Amino acid sequence: MKKIRTAIFGTGFMGRVHTEAVRRLGNVEVAAIAARTADQARKFADTLGIESATGDYTTILNDPEIEAVHVCAPNALHFEMTKSALQAGKHVVCEKPLASTISEAQEMVDLAKARNLANCTLYNIRFYPQIQNMLHMREAGEFGEIQIVQGTYSQDWLLYDTDWNWRIESGPSRAFADIGTHWCDLAEYLTGLKITSVCAELETFRKARKRPKHSIETFAGKKLQPSDYDEVPVKTEDFCSMMFHMGEGVRGSMTASQVSAGRKNFLSIELYGTKASAAWNAERPDELWVGNRNSANELYIKDPSLMRAGASQYADLPGGHSEGYDDTFKQILRQFYKKVADSEQQAEFPTFVDGIRQLYVLNAVLESAAKRAWVDVAGGDW
Amino acid sequence: MKKIRTAIFGTGFMGRVHTEAVRRLGNVEVAAIAARTADQARKFADTLGIESATGDYTTILNDPEIEAVHVCAPNALHFEMTKSALQAGKHVVCEKPLASTISEAQEMVDLAKARNLANCTLYNIRFYPQIQNMLHMREAGEFGEIQIVQGTYSQDWLLYDTDWNWRIESGPSRAFADIGTHWCDLAEYLTGLKITSVCAELETFRKARKRPKHSIETFAGKKLQPSDYDEVPVKTEDFCSMMFHMGEGVRGSMTASQVSAGRKNFLSIELYGTKASAAWNAERPDELWVGNRNSANELYIKDPSLMRAGASQYADLPGGHSEGYDDTFKQILRQFYKKVADSEQQAEFPTFVDGIRQLYVLNAVLESAAKRAWVDVAGGDW
Amino acid sequence: MKKIRTAIFGTGFMGRVHTEAVRRLGNVEVAAIAARTADQARKFADTLGIESATGDYTTILNDPEIEAVHVCAPNALHFEMTKSALQAGKHVVCEKPLASTISEAQEMVDLAKARNLANCTLYNIRFYPQIQNMLHMREAGEFGEIQIVQGTYSQDWLLYDTDWNWRIESGPSRAFADIGTHWCDLAEYLTGLKITSVCAELETFRKARKRPKHSIETFAGKKLQPSDYDEVPVKTEDFCSMMFHMGEGVRGSMTASQVSAGRKNFLSIELYGTKASAAWNAERPDELWVGNRNSANELYIKDPSLMRAGASQYADLPGGHSEGYDDTFKQILRQFYKKVADSEQQAEFPTFVDGIRQLYVLNAVLESAAKRAWVDVAGGDW
Amino acid sequence: MKKIRTAIFGTGFMGRVHTEAVRRLGNVEVAAIAARTADQARKFADTLGIESATGDYTTILNDPEIEAVHVCAPNALHFEMTKSALQAGKHVVCEKPLASTISEAQEMVDLAKARNLANCTLYNIRFYPQIQNMLHMREAGEFGEIQIVQGTYSQDWLLYDTDWNWRIESGPSRAFADIGTHWCDLAEYLTGLKITSVCAELETFRKARKRPKHSIETFAGKKLQPSDYDEVPVKTEDFCSMMFHMGEGVRGSMTASQVSAGRKNFLSIELYGTKASAAWNAERPDELWVGNRNSANELYIKDPSLMRAGASQYADLPGGHSEGYDDTFKQILRQFYKKVADSEQQAEFPTFVDGIRQLYVLNAVLESAAKRAWVDVAGGDW
Repeated sequence: MKKIRTAIFGTGFMGRVHTEAVRRLGNVEVAAIAARTADQARKFADTLGIESATGDYTTILNDPEIEAVHVCAPNALHFEMTKSALQAGKHVVCEKPLASTISEAQEMVDLAKARNLANCTLYNIRFYPQIQNMLHMREAGEFGEIQIVQGTYSQDWLLYDTDWNWRIESGPSRAFADIGTHWCDLAEYLTGLKITSVCAELETFRKARKRPKHSIETFAGKKLQPSDYDEVPVKTEDFCSMMFHMGEGVRGSMTASQVSAGRKNFLSIELYGTKASAAWNAERPDELWVGNRNSANELYIKDPSLMRAGASQYADLPGGHSEGYDDTFKQILRQFYKKVADSEQQAEFPTFVDGIRQLYVLNAVLESAAKRAWVDVAGGDW
Repeated sequence: MKKIRTAIFGTGFMGRVHTEAVRRLGNVEVAAIAARTADQARKFADTLGIESATGDYTTILNDPEIEAVHVCAPNALHFEMTKSALQAGKHVVCEKPLASTISEAQEMVDLAKARNLANCTLYNIRFYPQIQNMLHMREAGEFGEIQIVQGTYSQDWLLYDTDWNWRIESGPSRAFADIGTHWCDLAEYLTGLKITSVCAELETFRKARKRPKHSIETFAGKKLQPSDYDEVPVKTEDFCSMMFHMGEGVRGSMTASQVSAGRKNFLSIELYGTKASAAWNAERPDELWVGNRNSANELYIKDPSLMRAGASQYADLPGGHSEGYDDTFKQILRQFYKKVADSEQQAEFPTFVDGIRQLYVLNAVLESAAKRAWVDVAGGDW
Repeated sequence: MKKIRTAIFGTGFMGRVHTEAVRRLGNVEVAAIAARTADQARKFADTLGIESATGDYTTILNDPEIEAVHVCAPNALHFEMTKSALQAGKHVVCEKPLASTISEAQEMVDLAKARNLANCTLYNIRFYPQIQNMLHMREAGEFGEIQIVQGTYSQDWLLYDTDWNWRIESGPSRAFADIGTHWCDLAEYLTGLKITSVCAELETFRKARKRPKHSIETFAGKKLQPSDYDEVPVKTEDFCSMMFHMGEGVRGSMTASQVSAGRKNFLSIELYGTKASAAWNAERPDELWVGNRNSANELYIKDPSLMRAGASQYADLPGGHSEGYDDTFKQILRQFYKKVADSEQQAEFPTFVDGIRQLYVLNAVLESAAKRAWVDVAGGDW
Repeated sequence: MKKIRTAIFGTGFMGRVHTEAVRRLGNVEVAAIAARTADQARKFADTLGIESATGDYTTILNDPEIEAVHVCAPNALHFEMTKSALQAGKHVVCEKPLASTISEAQEMVDLAKARNLANCTLYNIRFYPQIQNMLHMREAGEFGEIQIVQGTYSQDWLLYDTDWNWRIESGPSRAFADIGTHWCDLAEYLTGLKITSVCAELETFRKARKRPKHSIETFAGKKLQPSDYDEVPVKTEDFCSMMFHMGEGVRGSMTASQVSAGRKNFLSIELYGTKASAAWNAERPDELWVGNRNSANELYIKDPSLMRAGASQYADLPGGHSEGYDDTFKQILRQFYKKVADSEQQAEFPTFVDGIRQLYVLNAVLESAAKRAWVDVAGGDW
């Protein structure tokens, strides 16, 4: 059996997660790894048992046996790597944010379309089984018309001024761009509606932070000792608060925070409709709460036999056997590689169009925060 | 032993709750009841075992043996009843909202002060044991500097257009004025900070409702059959969303809703500080969550022996023995009657000043929603 | 309006709880209090605003105006006080355990019956609204045939050897007799079945404890300093484990513990039937979990409008407004005084017959633990 | 890089789970699959992308390139397959139960030892991060001396008499042997103590079941229609209840059930010590509850930075990113293959000795249930 050969660009936390997920699929092989340096790539390849390793990702693009690539490198490289890969005729999975600007993202969208290449923006959270269940329940009208969408994405890993990560210096937005965008993608995905206008504010509580003089990995920050730091001013926000409108008359409220003690990965989203409600949070992903007015509320423990038709295919394990974060990557990549294997396939996964969509929302958030006013979201034709 | 004699104005749900609470105190007697009609008052008095009943509350004000009154009548009567009571030299407990306008409320505040009469706006939620514990933890600096305050007060009893209550026609605001104001009082009470500016929006999802042709009691609406209604346009909001600032740099977000299926009385409030966090909700009032970054989160089950000094006096029962909604009335009224019994007493309860405070916030919310812009809260000298 | 006049025997924690509950009813007056000494009685009466106080409870029995008494004194006095009260023609509420021996309890049952006096053993936990709901759901067949009953009653207030309470020296059993018996009463009440045989063991982990030289109140133990103690051997159990049979083929398992750190008042009971399941615990009394096989599990937040007919009368507050421990006393005593007011009334409350029933279970538990074998429960004709 | 070549025996649910887990390791390759028939094996191999497939597992044993095998076939084949594999010099991972009898299991233990081959009984639940955390906390003395161990393993997939699975006819015990044994392994693992005596009973509530005339997969039963069945008597138990002793004086209680509606995979285990307590359940595996007497209870969300030294290596993802059932297989097999790669390696995983241990417990349970009496567990020298 010939497997699809793929390559991973990036050796961080995401590189490892993608590698494991791809291997679980069965029909895809992680054939090569690219990193900033050949050494780094080789070390990762040895640890994870990957044949080929390189410090120059373009050599992989030149390999005609490689059909797809996963862009898991830092955000600033997404555009360049993805564009090159598409030009080389590779299918591309790109971590979010898709690009630094809308024009870059648009170029990626156009290029992928022109070349008829499978393209995926990695909004993996969509693939928790209970998120799929919520989606199919909403589509079936079980909640009636959605009226209110609210929630938060809160974490605490940047609470102290001794917490550092490259993301702190990575762009015009941090809390919103890193995690708020996941929340907004989910809100649009679950409701089937677009965010039409926003009123946001951004706040940087830690106005200066201690940057370590040597590199550290994402999320590993908490273990560091408070020494060997440079004091640097911080421009990206720790916290974002937002009111928004969706579709015709839906009202929304959300916050995103990286300084909320005790919240490790608390993405909580709630839909309130004219018939019923639903709530889910990423710290208890196997559970789905359904709120009712005239009967008991319901609490689903993940169980394929209780999931809606269309949703149960996204749960691989029997009732009560938890499926976690890594499992969402298996699900999203399984869909992506169905498309790679057969371009006629109707596969279900977020594409670059979904990636650019969230950049439009981000732009509106930034503009609204600057103006302290309601701002319409452009790109409404998506 | 001579008991303080008090009277209840109002025979609704609140009238009953106040009556029971007063009786638990031991040193106060519910001596009289007033209602719209003598019949209504007599019926209530017979059911609850109260001696004196009247359809004219002023007769009670003329009774020199009555030292205090509880204004539990519909909102529109709060000002008139309270003013008359104060003029008659009675101490007054008034349900919130204190009055319909700030000038009325100011008159009440001034009158109470001039006469040196005990006065209480009934923000009972402050008196859940875990709220007291949260307060004392914050005052002791256990959370560090508060940075974020967020939450919701969501209910579902007005979800359908067949749900009706006099509150729907009661004023310029409903979801915010009825329940949002409780949340805001709690946010200010718990942080010790004032809301300085707001950016709010109000939404009426049910733009018309079916008003029954005969009277019904608050909260009993869900049991009615959808017949014998008048279709009436609705101007008060079902839902309020708000961003706000508190003190120096605290950021806030809240929603208030009466149309959120499955949420019965879901007042949830979360404080995030530079050291730690706290979260509480009224549907599980005996529990207090404390969030930490570098150690486990904590979950307190109400237990006087684990409560902070100053807070444990507000828990009457041993650990794990739940104290509910009615118990908060016992606690707040115990404080109020300490003051009635001895005007020198340093008693802890919300006064009319706290009541007028929330009218300033309400006004700012209404103005902000009308302007779709940030608005400062007046009355900042409180 | 003439109120029923009642008296409370005992000035401990329970004396206060009964006093407050009686007063909430409206048609009953706490007219007198009895304690071990006149001083103690007077102090309690002054604090709680009770007219009459005595160190000799028999003087109260001689008062023809007193119609009922509440026996809230230490267990050893239950028989004597209740018997005297019945002989004096008083209706009696007696705290559990009803008596020290079955023959005493039988005498109490017989006497109450002969005199046609209302009699109540205070199994208050039956009166949490969700317990009533569970009962009515079971009676309606919503769970099918019950097959399994399991749970625990765990507390931690006697974890350390410095924890002391008079109950430690009070009889042949402690963890089972104090709290296990509440659980067993609930199991029989909820299922409508009798425990027919038991296989139990009792364990005293703290084989010696430090007894303070001066008296302390129940549950207040944790706050004491570890000084001024006598080291005494302990014969009553800290922990009881039990398997049991109910009705025809129902299997059961329970534990009772007073040494389980972190469990404050954790009475958890679960019923598993051929159709569905139900679970409840006293630390979250407003919630009822219903387990289903082919549909979502259900989670009820206490809400009268969602309660089964027959159960909703035991919830006084609207949905989501918590009703706690004290409220169960109001409910049980409301039922009791209906009967006092009108002996023809069909009132629903546990009587002395329910009290003696649990003494039979206790005896079987003690015998089983001694023999390390299965033992049948006598008194099966109840 | 040369990878360890391994083979999977069995194409059921477990075969798939093992295959995915092995592939995530990086240094091991699933080279072959064996099933009852060549067709079945080929189909599985094609779906999962495995090179070699056979209906005769012995051909795999003859392949010198294969270093290890995973026995995921039905229980009755465990002994034969494992023995043959060991004799062929293969390292073996065997699903539990290790064998049908103690003598078989002993032969497996002896053979593995004699050949110095790595051997693993697949008690995967030990490898949830929070279980590892609980273990290391207990070893560090954080709970003091353990006094009580209690819990349940409850499921509902065999609730109805139309539910069928080969396990129903698989041996002398079902509920205990299938899931109770997982619980007992965990109890012994977490406490470091052995179960010394048991008092158990077994109950078959569904005394006859409808067996489908064609084969179905484990856990898929609920989706079948109630047609084409044979009515067969059932001898294996639906429910097991057990009291037990561990170590010196530890008291225990557990139930195992496959007929508890709403419980999907509810393995709940609680340890109560002289200092503190811990509780965990498999339906919320990322959470660990710690119970305290004189301070707040603690609730850990899985977070490597909050895990005890020695435990954090078993969490691959940052705080709040859930790790599920499949991830436990990655962890346990990572340990196993460390040993395969280097026999000197001190690897941490359950061996055949742990598998035979639970057969001794099973035998005692069966004997106790038959005698309705306490029975000592043999094999106490383990």
